[in-house]
Amino acid sequence: MTEAKSNFLIQCLRGASQVFFMRNALTGALFFLAIAYASHVSGSWASLIGAAVGVVVATLTARLLDCDETSVSSGLFGFNGILVGAALPDFIAASPQLWVYVVIGAAASTVITAAFSATLTSNWKIPGSTGPFVLTGWLMVASAYSFGGLNVIGDTPKLASDYVQGLVSIPSPIELAEIVFRSIGQVYLLDSAISGAILLLGIFIASIPAGIAAVAGSLAAAITSIAMGAPPALVGQGLYGFSPVLTAMAVGVIFLKPSPKAAAYALLATVTTVFVQGALDVILAPSGIPSFTAPYVLTMYMFIAPKKLIAPHPHKTVPGHLVDARRSKMLAPRLRDG
Amino acid sequence: MTEAKSNFLIQCLRGASQVFFMRNALTGALFFLAIAYASHVSGSWASLIGAAVGVVVATLTARLLDCDETSVSSGLFGFNGILVGAALPDFIAASPQLWVYVVIGAAASTVITAAFSATLTSNWKIPGSTGPFVLTGWLMVASAYSFGGLNVIGDTPKLASDYVQGLVSIPSPIELAEIVFRSIGQVYLLDSAISGAILLLGIFIASIPAGIAAVAGSLAAAITSIAMGAPPALVGQGLYGFSPVLTAMAVGVIFLKPSPKAAAYALLATVTTVFVQGALDVILAPSGIPSFTAPYVLTMYMFIAPKKLIAPHPHKTVPGHLVDARRSKMLAPRLRDG
Amino acid sequence: MTEAKSNFLIQCLRGASQVFFMRNALTGALFFLAIAYASHVSGSWASLIGAAVGVVVATLTARLLDCDETSVSSGLFGFNGILVGAALPDFIAASPQLWVYVVIGAAASTVITAAFSATLTSNWKIPGSTGPFVLTGWLMVASAYSFGGLNVIGDTPKLASDYVQGLVSIPSPIELAEIVFRSIGQVYLLDSAISGAILLLGIFIASIPAGIAAVAGSLAAAITSIAMGAPPALVGQGLYGFSPVLTAMAVGVIFLKPSPKAAAYALLATVTTVFVQGALDVILAPSGIPSFTAPYVLTMYMFIAPKKLIAPHPHKTVPGHLVDARRSKMLAPRLRDG
Repeated sequence: MTEAKSNFLIQCLRGASQVFFMRNALTGALFFLAIAYASHVSGSWASLIGAAVGVVVATLTARLLDCDETSVSSGLFGFNGILVGAALPDFIAASPQLWVYVVIGAAASTVITAAFSATLTSNWKIPGSTGPFVLTGWLMVASAYSFGGLNVIGDTPKLASDYVQGLVSIPSPIELAEIVFRSIGQVYLLDSAISGAILLLGIFIASIPAGIAAVAGSLAAAITSIAMGAPPALVGQGLYGFSPVLTAMAVGVIFLKPSPKAAAYALLATVTTVFVQGALDVILAPSGIPSFTAPYVLTMYMFIAPKKLIAPHPHKTVPGHLVDARRSKMLAPRLRDG
Repeated sequence: MTEAKSNFLIQCLRGASQVFFMRNALTGALFFLAIAYASHVSGSWASLIGAAVGVVVATLTARLLDCDETSVSSGLFGFNGILVGAALPDFIAASPQLWVYVVIGAAASTVITAAFSATLTSNWKIPGSTGPFVLTGWLMVASAYSFGGLNVIGDTPKLASDYVQGLVSIPSPIELAEIVFRSIGQVYLLDSAISGAILLLGIFIASIPAGIAAVAGSLAAAITSIAMGAPPALVGQGLYGFSPVLTAMAVGVIFLKPSPKAAAYALLATVTTVFVQGALDVILAPSGIPSFTAPYVLTMYMFIAPKKLIAPHPHKTVPGHLVDARRSKMLAPRLRDG
Repeated sequence: MTEAKSNFLIQCLRGASQVFFMRNALTGALFFLAIAYASHVSGSWASLIGAAVGVVVATLTARLLDCDETSVSSGLFGFNGILVGAALPDFIAASPQLWVYVVIGAAASTVITAAFSATLTSNWKIPGSTGPFVLTGWLMVASAYSFGGLNVIGDTPKLASDYVQGLVSIPSPIELAEIVFRSIGQVYLLDSAISGAILLLGIFIASIPAGIAAVAGSLAAAITSIAMGAPPALVGQGLYGFSPVLTAMAVGVIFLKPSPKAAAYALLATVTTVFVQGALDVILAPSGIPSFTAPYVLTMYMFIAPKKLIAPHPHKTVPGHLVDARRSKMLAPRLRDG
């Protein structure tokens, strides 16, 4: 009994660490410390409680559904749940309905994780990653506008034309370092450079190359977003950097074998993520939902999907189509190649 | 000739019954009666005519395209067409162009049904269900805003911030029963408790467990939406219940073998559908299109997709990637597990 | 060296020709002439330079990534890049950041082309076609609203209710001919009937059936959009015709074997594309992004996906679901068929 309980605790802590692709309970414990620090600073503990509830419910749901044991034990069914639990109290005011919401959202995130595995991963070897969190989070924040028991906090929906574009300002080295740490913190929706530093420590404990990729990705994102003239307030909060951090880690060291070529490829992916961040902020604005880690998820899917030896379909007839006129005596058009 | 004609009529009636997953011409005939009753009450017969045209055109198109005969005969190529035909006159004012629109929409729904089968079903055993109707309906209602010959009726597009959140009020048992029946009626876009009761009778004639699931799903949705504070006017019309009804039937008795575990799983899916309903209403509001059965479709896809033995991709290198540096002498990062 | 260079030039010109499904360097050269003519008329050369940069960067990226050689050589990795390069300067004012943007967008379009091939094509034999351009273009135009260094030109985001619906007016034969040519020109975002005529000449040089399909598709789109009452100004510019042109070519002669049945199927697809054009214009309006060739891409995917012998999933239990209660003694519901 005690063994099973401690096992379960370790699975939950590993789930916390898997947000940054790690499988390490100590790292997960440090991640909880980082959330606690940010809660202490802000004075609001709902995110910390939400994170704990989220990872517990998600992991428990996976056990009840007899999901793949190794995956459950590695925390692979917990990291989307912890993000759902940490994110919802950030966007919805505390109420009894919020906590019902967190529990159901975390349980649903486990089902959606299994659904992504059975589709994206099963056929295409694309990792679902935090895609299930993004989908669950979008649906639940949008849904909250419809319910009297749930009050959405923060920005109201708007059109892209309402955007205030930023003046470019070059930050000092200290400001830049703060942006780098804040960007890492925002992966857990934490608006604190110190929390970001604790998270980074946790990553380094589990994997030095992963820690280096996190810093490099955060820096590349900061430079790109400043050079393109992103809104300074958002850049300063690390809101242009948290998705690129994940892209740099995922493409640079986790899902591809590190090499100079993979590093160049990861850099292109990281810079692209900054643009996708800008795009999704605009596209989602009218719906009043945040982009969460969708810029990372979308970019990573696109950059991890390509496999060797698979060519685009040539501009020739597709095989076995429903409308396949076998009896037709007309010939296919001959293209004159040149 | 007479045989073929009557066969075709039976195929169309079965198509009507497949909206609720049944394959029963008598049930289909009762469903047409339910639509006729609602038309009689509202005084507008366009939806009834649209439904008849929709199922005939969709089934005929499937025959002309030599689609799988057993499926055509079971009505599986007709139920998206009947929904397209029943829905479009609800959102677009009658005009000659509307009827061109219904015919082309119903024909396209057959092609899209075949497309969903060749992708979702072929690879992942996810049933397309009313997904083709949702996609066709969205495109055609949105498109109507662009054309002078088609006038969109009803609500104008708006932002989520314009939402009026509801005051929670607990309905009397009779009001609750009305909501349960109306929710079933809204699957066919019918705003009538009596039409809902006729539909339910049709379901029970074909399958008692399916009828029980429909009532249970409708009740669970009503309770959830009231507890969360959904807009009372919408709840009262059954607009928070029709998608959950389909989810409860699909997940609880049609696509999974009934068991206590499947029932609990279906309950989670049903409650989730209520939240997805709230979400899609908000997300689609700026585009001025209704959510149709999308909350059911999206939730059902997610809950039916997970298969045994399929694990999430671990956070390790994906096989056979385009950027696979075989010649690289660098080692993959070693994660320190713990 | 000279050989390799000329080879590369031919690959790029073939890439230009692949926008209209051809593999012909002479056709590609004529296409560049068409862009140059439109630039000469408008006085702005950014689109021509963008097109050249786009196809060069995209093709080069494919070479650096060791993508399938035959495909690279056929220009199949260049046509999305040329469209990205031609389109971005049409929607974003010239600035140093714009050119960085074009280079990164074109490089990303190659990765996304490989991703579409590894998913859509690999499993379902659906050609990615200009889908990667649409996705890249959407993300980059939307993203430009977020960056001070990038100024979006043209219409501001709006709601569908702001749409001014058109008065139907029947064009003279000469006006109709102009619309037909302009629609072909708009595939390359060229607002010039003469450029359209040059493009059409290029198509006929490579394939007579493809040229006939282009004209037929353009004519069918013009008639459909006028009959439905589309906004006359947009119809006159060819903005309701360029996606249907591609659909008619793709479904009518490129991806299906030409036959009377395929022609009827292509006509349904072409008319459907006109409606999808109207729909996407409305749906995308609040986000402030143009629909590009998405109406063609979406319709073509749906019409090319269906394969012989693949039936919709019947309304029965799906195999191997996670929640598969083998030990359950309850029976599956028996549907009473009729």
